[in-house]
Amino acid sequence: MQEHDVVGIGNAIVDIIGRCDDAFLARHGYAKGSMQLVDAAAAAQLYDAMGPAVEISGGSGANTIVGVASFGGRAGFIGKTADDAFGQIFGHDIRSAGVTFTTAPAAKASEPTGRCLVLVTPDGQRTMHTFLGVSPQLGGGEVDPALVASARIVYLEGYLFDRAEAKAAFRDAAGIAARAGRQVALSLSDAFCVDRHRSEFLALIRSCVDILFANEAEITSLYQTRSFDDAARRAQADTKLAALTRSEKGSLILGEGKAIMVPADPVAEVVDTTGAGDLYAAGFLFGVATGRDLQTAGRLGSLAAAEAISHIGARPEKKLAELARAKGLIG
Amino acid sequence: MQEHDVVGIGNAIVDIIGRCDDAFLARHGYAKGSMQLVDAAAAAQLYDAMGPAVEISGGSGANTIVGVASFGGRAGFIGKTADDAFGQIFGHDIRSAGVTFTTAPAAKASEPTGRCLVLVTPDGQRTMHTFLGVSPQLGGGEVDPALVASARIVYLEGYLFDRAEAKAAFRDAAGIAARAGRQVALSLSDAFCVDRHRSEFLALIRSCVDILFANEAEITSLYQTRSFDDAARRAQADTKLAALTRSEKGSLILGEGKAIMVPADPVAEVVDTTGAGDLYAAGFLFGVATGRDLQTAGRLGSLAAAEAISHIGARPEKKLAELARAKGLIG
Repeated sequence: MQEHDVVGIGNAIVDIIGRCDDAFLARHGYAKGSMQLVDAAAAAQLYDAMGPAVEISGGSGANTIVGVASFGGRAGFIGKTADDAFGQIFGHDIRSAGVTFTTAPAAKASEPTGRCLVLVTPDGQRTMHTFLGVSPQLGGGEVDPALVASARIVYLEGYLFDRAEAKAAFRDAAGIAARAGRQVALSLSDAFCVDRHRSEFLALIRSCVDILFANEAEITSLYQTRSFDDAARRAQADTKLAALTRSEKGSLILGEGKAIMVPADPVAEVVDTTGAGDLYAAGFLFGVATGRDLQTAGRLGSLAAAEAISHIGARPEKKLAELARAKGLIG
Repeated sequence: MQEHDVVGIGNAIVDIIGRCDDAFLARHGYAKGSMQLVDAAAAAQLYDAMGPAVEISGGSGANTIVGVASFGGRAGFIGKTADDAFGQIFGHDIRSAGVTFTTAPAAKASEPTGRCLVLVTPDGQRTMHTFLGVSPQLGGGEVDPALVASARIVYLEGYLFDRAEAKAAFRDAAGIAARAGRQVALSLSDAFCVDRHRSEFLALIRSCVDILFANEAEITSLYQTRSFDDAARRAQADTKLAALTRSEKGSLILGEGKAIMVPADPVAEVVDTTGAGDLYAAGFLFGVATGRDLQTAGRLGSLAAAEAISHIGARPEKKLAELARAKGLIG
């Protein structure tokens, strides 16, 4: 198998993105900025209630992996779709982005392909309701050992912990990567997700995670503290390398005994923050996997995040390699 | 039935919009800016070849009708979907935009919902390949007479002429509107479409069309002349009211014995021209249906077209009524 820079494992999701006002969130009791799991019926009900939408392939880990490919990185993805229209969309979009994606769709009459209803408020914030569908049925056996072992970094999304089957796949992959001497990266995904799986995440981070991604809400949730500085100190003690993102305040990279502040890239208009964290991870992972220094990796993350929030949808619209070259970040 | 300002009849289509470079068009022999009909196999082949895409409800006439609703107009649509994922997307998006849409989807195991593969080049031009699917199976009987008669203007897209069944629906609707003393508007849709149906279009325009929409390529194709001025003179002789669009040169409105030039609205960046003509028609029809003067109707058209080309997809992202109010075009 060809060598990969980054292989990701995550939920295969198509985003259904529509706009709403703050009153809509309030009326439905939704916590702005969060991700909530819903069943098929609740997803259908919300879809009926929401306004016109666009459908764009998503999934946190998948967005990151497509970002890595957009930087010119060799990227692969493992995730479960159904044999339906959304599954075809997901498969087409990730493959045509240049990503190795060989996970077979589930047989006909399975649960449908997962979807995420994304409500974007006028401030650009996104509030998400995810119906996972067939996505967590990623049995441990479906994690292709050769593909995982082919990657310099294996990237795992924390959302996988929300279902037992996916968690097994997660542990499989981490084991394969460790045995192959590869690096394991983890994204904490969402503050509520952290709340659901705090002790398991902490155990993982302390035992087998080489690179940790978290935003401010996630890292403070992990360590149950209100102070970002306190959480950062504890993350630095627990990890070899951590990238903590703070929206417009940029990111703090903790590694090699240093703490590096990286500014956020300016954005003319924040249209939709969906995928900001995913794309930051893409730039950072591409940088680390290709041997760039941490400061440059962080700046690649800032660049990719800025591209993602300047339009609707999490997947990059512009070629990130070209944007990075224009800024002199890559040759 | 409640009164409507505009009811449209057209193909119910979901757009699959991706970016490509000019070399991709050349390699496949596609004529930039055109719309070509393809079968299921050719659509699948092109989808495989094209890059990552987003799915957004489309259909020329449907885009116009959603635009009318976005201006605050009372709008209805008649068009055929299948009972599949794209049919659900189309139905959700048009209804949630506030449009009356009651056409029942075809039974299970019909042809699929129609789709249009839209290739957007870096200059913002779009090149389209449409697989109509179940869309033309809009039997004449499915044109709800009460809905058609409820509309001040019935809007018909020229694309309907590409299939016999849809053409029957078109003629049904025109007949109902005429008997109800309503206005009939027609869009010529595409220069190649005009080429396929020139004599029928000319006969219709001279007999039962009250408002004609065409762009420069379409009107010169209709009259088989290279001169826009020549085509415009002949359109003025043949129609009560015509709005001829000329991209960045604005539009020429011919009616009430006058020829009115309306400038195009400036756009910071032309991202995707998909729907520019459809949305111009939306503004113009909203203006005419609500009794505004022709100059104002044209300016509403320019405003809506500018909004449409400033982002990916044909459906308005911003509320057109608010944009029009900000410009003092509506109260």
